[in-house]
Amino acid sequence: MSGSISPLAPKTYADMPPVRGVRMATAAAGIKYRNRTDVLMMVFDRPAAVAGVFTRSRCPSAPVDFCRANLPGGVARAVVVNSGNANAFTGRKGRESTKMTAEAAARAVGCSEGEVFLASTGVIGEPLDATKFSGVLDNLAASGTEDFWFEAAKAIMTTDTYPKVATRTASLGGVTVTINGIAKGAGMIAPDMATMLSFVVTDADIPAPVLQSLLSAGVGPTFNSVTVDSDTSTSDTLMLFATGAAAADGQAPVTADDAALDGFRAALTDLLRDLALQVVRDGEGARKMVEVTVEGAESDEAAKRIALSIANSPLVKTAVAGEDANWGRVVMAVGKSGEMADRDRLAIWFGDVRVAVDGERDPAYSEDAASAVMKRQDIPVRVEIGLGNGRATVWTCDLTKEYVEINGDYRS
Amino acid sequence: MSGSISPLAPKTYADMPPVRGVRMATAAAGIKYRNRTDVLMMVFDRPAAVAGVFTRSRCPSAPVDFCRANLPGGVARAVVVNSGNANAFTGRKGRESTKMTAEAAARAVGCSEGEVFLASTGVIGEPLDATKFSGVLDNLAASGTEDFWFEAAKAIMTTDTYPKVATRTASLGGVTVTINGIAKGAGMIAPDMATMLSFVVTDADIPAPVLQSLLSAGVGPTFNSVTVDSDTSTSDTLMLFATGAAAADGQAPVTADDAALDGFRAALTDLLRDLALQVVRDGEGARKMVEVTVEGAESDEAAKRIALSIANSPLVKTAVAGEDANWGRVVMAVGKSGEMADRDRLAIWFGDVRVAVDGERDPAYSEDAASAVMKRQDIPVRVEIGLGNGRATVWTCDLTKEYVEINGDYRS
Repeated sequence: MSGSISPLAPKTYADMPPVRGVRMATAAAGIKYRNRTDVLMMVFDRPAAVAGVFTRSRCPSAPVDFCRANLPGGVARAVVVNSGNANAFTGRKGRESTKMTAEAAARAVGCSEGEVFLASTGVIGEPLDATKFSGVLDNLAASGTEDFWFEAAKAIMTTDTYPKVATRTASLGGVTVTINGIAKGAGMIAPDMATMLSFVVTDADIPAPVLQSLLSAGVGPTFNSVTVDSDTSTSDTLMLFATGAAAADGQAPVTADDAALDGFRAALTDLLRDLALQVVRDGEGARKMVEVTVEGAESDEAAKRIALSIANSPLVKTAVAGEDANWGRVVMAVGKSGEMADRDRLAIWFGDVRVAVDGERDPAYSEDAASAVMKRQDIPVRVEIGLGNGRATVWTCDLTKEYVEINGDYRS
Repeated sequence: MSGSISPLAPKTYADMPPVRGVRMATAAAGIKYRNRTDVLMMVFDRPAAVAGVFTRSRCPSAPVDFCRANLPGGVARAVVVNSGNANAFTGRKGRESTKMTAEAAARAVGCSEGEVFLASTGVIGEPLDATKFSGVLDNLAASGTEDFWFEAAKAIMTTDTYPKVATRTASLGGVTVTINGIAKGAGMIAPDMATMLSFVVTDADIPAPVLQSLLSAGVGPTFNSVTVDSDTSTSDTLMLFATGAAAADGQAPVTADDAALDGFRAALTDLLRDLALQVVRDGEGARKMVEVTVEGAESDEAAKRIALSIANSPLVKTAVAGEDANWGRVVMAVGKSGEMADRDRLAIWFGDVRVAVDGERDPAYSEDAASAVMKRQDIPVRVEIGLGNGRATVWTCDLTKEYVEINGDYRS
């Protein structure tokens, strides 16, 4: 947790309602930090359906391996998350640590280890001392409450400057269901996955395979469309749990292609985008938020690669930090993306100001108008490729001296 | 040109001998800078053979298009290079500007426009006023001298803090030939190409197709193995000219697969590496040089992609800036490269200090020993993947607050 809160932080936090069927509690286990909570436990008193999406890193953390192994079971009873140590690249000790933690959680909740899910965030390569958990999980399992979302979000923070929470409701099978989510960033954020950790819970009654398809579809335009620094964590984890409590209200069962899921799908995607954008807005050292939209590419996939090339360019990001309407660097980033682009058909907008068209500076270009856009906190950049109908939007933040400062000195 | 010289600058500059057959002169045309030279003209009084490698950007500058069109002719009589304006994304005006400049150069030298090569570096998207050249090229063509390499290197600088020059000799066809080169960086440096501009001239007598194959082979382990910020310029240009003056000494003719070329090839590659490393050592804001070697990957190509993933990682580069032996970020970068890696076989060295082995921190890990390496100016990082025989080395610099500062207000 940094000393000062990101200037892009939300002005108010969502008022998080309880989600029936999940209880939470946190503890200060002293894993790395002092005087703050660093362990979160979620308990599902009745088995919840579970879905997950994880980092594509070839060197994933031990908890990611552990979750992947348990996911096919489709049932969750407990989640244990710690901050301060990622338990990544910890070899045999890392596997032993996840096993010990899962055993302790399973004992505390009265379930099998296959119904436990784990996530860790923090420093890589330091052994995680699982004995720090053994003393706290029994108590957490017993004391958890439904009305604890904001505290849960705080316990999983690392360099985040504010906790990330979001809530939505949707109509499903004749009843109103709730979706709550928490997330943490704030560096090493890039597809795929785009956040380090996020946990979403709904009281809807949705089978695990359906839940997985909803989550897999929802992650593309949300968490996998944000980037802070192009670096991908070994630990990225997004999990979605459905407690099924709404069944008691009379919620009708759902299947994968059910039109009844449309409202839920929209609400879930909206919540995931909300959380993903909160992660970007808390990007390390971020002072400005940039929304990059690419249109007219050969395909949606090409548009996304071009948009990410722009959003990950250090030269674009430093220009944004400097409030410099340097659209030439946007051209550079389009050119280096490797995707088809015809220089002489390109057009670029900063906000509503068209700065380039037909392969050169807009004849009506106004430095004052472009600069006024760059002074905003939220900066929309739009690029028209002029070759097809492919379209994508991604979000990033600026690259500031504070980013360098935070990351030049993270471990010490 | 920044105010202060990079701490990684060479302590002394190479003493550049003349290369028979090329004359150079510079002028202050006032393209952008005041009180400094910004135009370089090279004149080959007798036709020189020419080879070139250019940016892979899909949005190349007008001069890159121009050079590509002339390259198949294989003959060079004049080169005009300017700093201060890249003539990139300048549309029809850009093409008119290259045409006007080439016409003026051809008139001044008495050759065809197809024997003229152009390069521009500086701001993108601003029309380049070619009339600024018309007054100076006649005089430059007339006044050029052979002993002007250092001044030539100075005229093409942008944010470079020192001029980049290198010289080598080689034995070829029974005589000693000279190879001289100049280059400029210093941001927007990444494969492929890896430098913005570099011009190399030899007095050897080598036909253009042979010259091209030598250059194309030489660029891979040199300019295409360095990266400052992962951004690829629209203007990257590396050209190699052979004046053929050594034929008068009795140099025997050479063909493509001639073993007689081995010495020349080695000297050329060595010179290209020298220039490429000078570019990295002048990376914007650089305080440290990092040599990343990856061994044991599935192939050389895989090794290079992993090495570049490490070298381009903002989190690795900020850790280097902070003198933090954060090898966990190296693991992260290996993992995100997309190449095969087995976490439990990875080993990592900083200098001679093995920090990780068999998927976890080295049992003999010493924070003091690792930190001592990080305090050096030149930091070797070596990663053993443990899967095959693929090997690659790339070079980069650290990511500092000065990089952000330089690039947050480059245009203003």
